[in-house]
Amino acid sequence: MKTHVFGAHVDRRVLLSSFAALPLPALLRSTAALAQDAGSTLASWNDGAAKQAIIDFVRVTTDRSSPKFVPPPERIATFDQDGTLWVEHPMYTFVTYCLERVPILVKAKPGLKEVEPFKTVLSGNQDEIAKLTTPDLEKILAATLTGMTVEEFKAEATKWLDAARHPRWNRSYTELIYQPMLEVLRFLRANDYKTYIVTGGGQDFARMGSEKIYGIPPEQVVGTASATKYEYDKDGRPTLFKEPKLMLFDDFGGKAEGIHLMIGRRPYAAFGNSTGDQQMLEYTGAGDGARLMMLVLHDDAQREYAYGPAQGLPDTKVGTFTQALYDEAKKDGWTVISMKNDWKRIFAFD
Amino acid sequence: MKTHVFGAHVDRRVLLSSFAALPLPALLRSTAALAQDAGSTLASWNDGAAKQAIIDFVRVTTDRSSPKFVPPPERIATFDQDGTLWVEHPMYTFVTYCLERVPILVKAKPGLKEVEPFKTVLSGNQDEIAKLTTPDLEKILAATLTGMTVEEFKAEATKWLDAARHPRWNRSYTELIYQPMLEVLRFLRANDYKTYIVTGGGQDFARMGSEKIYGIPPEQVVGTASATKYEYDKDGRPTLFKEPKLMLFDDFGGKAEGIHLMIGRRPYAAFGNSTGDQQMLEYTGAGDGARLMMLVLHDDAQREYAYGPAQGLPDTKVGTFTQALYDEAKKDGWTVISMKNDWKRIFAFD
Repeated sequence: MKTHVFGAHVDRRVLLSSFAALPLPALLRSTAALAQDAGSTLASWNDGAAKQAIIDFVRVTTDRSSPKFVPPPERIATFDQDGTLWVEHPMYTFVTYCLERVPILVKAKPGLKEVEPFKTVLSGNQDEIAKLTTPDLEKILAATLTGMTVEEFKAEATKWLDAARHPRWNRSYTELIYQPMLEVLRFLRANDYKTYIVTGGGQDFARMGSEKIYGIPPEQVVGTASATKYEYDKDGRPTLFKEPKLMLFDDFGGKAEGIHLMIGRRPYAAFGNSTGDQQMLEYTGAGDGARLMMLVLHDDAQREYAYGPAQGLPDTKVGTFTQALYDEAKKDGWTVISMKNDWKRIFAFD
Repeated sequence: MKTHVFGAHVDRRVLLSSFAALPLPALLRSTAALAQDAGSTLASWNDGAAKQAIIDFVRVTTDRSSPKFVPPPERIATFDQDGTLWVEHPMYTFVTYCLERVPILVKAKPGLKEVEPFKTVLSGNQDEIAKLTTPDLEKILAATLTGMTVEEFKAEATKWLDAARHPRWNRSYTELIYQPMLEVLRFLRANDYKTYIVTGGGQDFARMGSEKIYGIPPEQVVGTASATKYEYDKDGRPTLFKEPKLMLFDDFGGKAEGIHLMIGRRPYAAFGNSTGDQQMLEYTGAGDGARLMMLVLHDDAQREYAYGPAQGLPDTKVGTFTQALYDEAKKDGWTVISMKNDWKRIFAFD
């Protein structure tokens, strides 16, 4: 195979341009090259402890002469999605999707019109909707994310995501990706890290656009998942039906459990922004050798949002970064990323 | 990054030898090259319909000018393990492991000594053990595969697998891999297919040696999985505890469900050998474009085993290839691999 390709009948330019598209093996790369790469790849990061922590981690884990070298197959990095890779305010995108699906659901099942919590959602009263409890939200999620085939769900959700606009920026949610984090994903992948999304949100929802948005294929998306059921449709065609039965609750301890189920290896790097990511970072940090744990602190009301309540930021109940989590980060050597100070720009369109 | 590597200060021989280790991009490869590759890669296959089906499938899905071309990220191939990749007789290896764990389990929990089905297993009476029902086996599996941390399980099972020998060949189970299937795995991977194991056996058990045995990393192993629970051990260290609670039953329809959960894409190729693989092959075949579905028929009592009961082979209850499955294969255009006729050799040591 190799002999053939390196033989005479392959055009040299074609060969070079093809290789140029390939990820470069770590063994070819010197520390100087890495620093150069990081400088151009992490272009939206201000110099500082956060940027340096990323560069140092990649250096010690990819340099073959380093005692903390990690063989490429073991290079796993996991990223929370909401509030870590894209905007989660005023509400998680997948919850917004579920809430907006309620009128369509009620059209199909009119009996739900007078039943709570669907009645409150239909009222459109934002104050009342904001007061819905977790069990209420779970009912809405179960009703809107299941009861259809996986293909039907994907088609519906894709259509919604293409059309939906964020109320503040009037832009697609898929544009509200943090450019600095996109650069981290690329930098890690260029260094043979396999990047995963590990989200508390719906797995099928998060998978939908992950390849296009982040360059992360569906098989590298771990999320809260309902069971599916293998059935034959009326034409005898095999199909997978989304059941209203929770299979994996991928938040808090469930993130570590989901990582074991879906990846089977402990990550070397983990990124989050809330108490839902605490256990994923703890699990990552409990491994041997060099590990990188980072938390995005939303402290930039002007360019994005400011909420916490770490460091006295307001508690908005969406993406809760408590003071206790902040203290654990300090104690355990996790790096807190200040959006305000560490990020030169937030979005690609900035 | 690329400029640097193609610059003057990289030794040309280092560069070439590094590239030689990389998978070659499909766009460089002609049909003639593919046939040449297949000839040397599928060396343990006799010429015939089965070998040709594999070569034809790879050609039409990787040739950019083919109407059935499949973009590399979508190239997913799934393989059952027991009876498809390695020997499953006289008993599935992971069940053998569980049965052999019973004495150790009873040592730790003496109360189980007089409780069925543990009592029967301890008796050593092979005829009685062979009569254990599925619920009996499930009890044994739950008791021996759970109740410990994931690290403890991995350490114990690895130790067992290193030491265990197959009663017929007196060789490690990891040597009883079908060489022709190993060649198919390599041939598909050389053509940018991502290869997965999708097994009815325990996921953590199958993951243990998958990288070394098949070149398949743990994150590409889908299997029957128990839930884990995130806990802190007595030293406050985060740990995942294997719970006696079935999460994914990865057999029959569960294989299609497991593929959706863990991969999120429909495979283009699927390989099995029993009724437990039927739905995985149906699900694969229900996709558009070119799909490859293959079933290994164990019809070689001399070199391996002969069981079925398709084509009048004996029904041994381990790896059931029924006549109905055989008929479905014929009707739906799946390819049946005859071990006796299609495989030049069975094992690497043959």
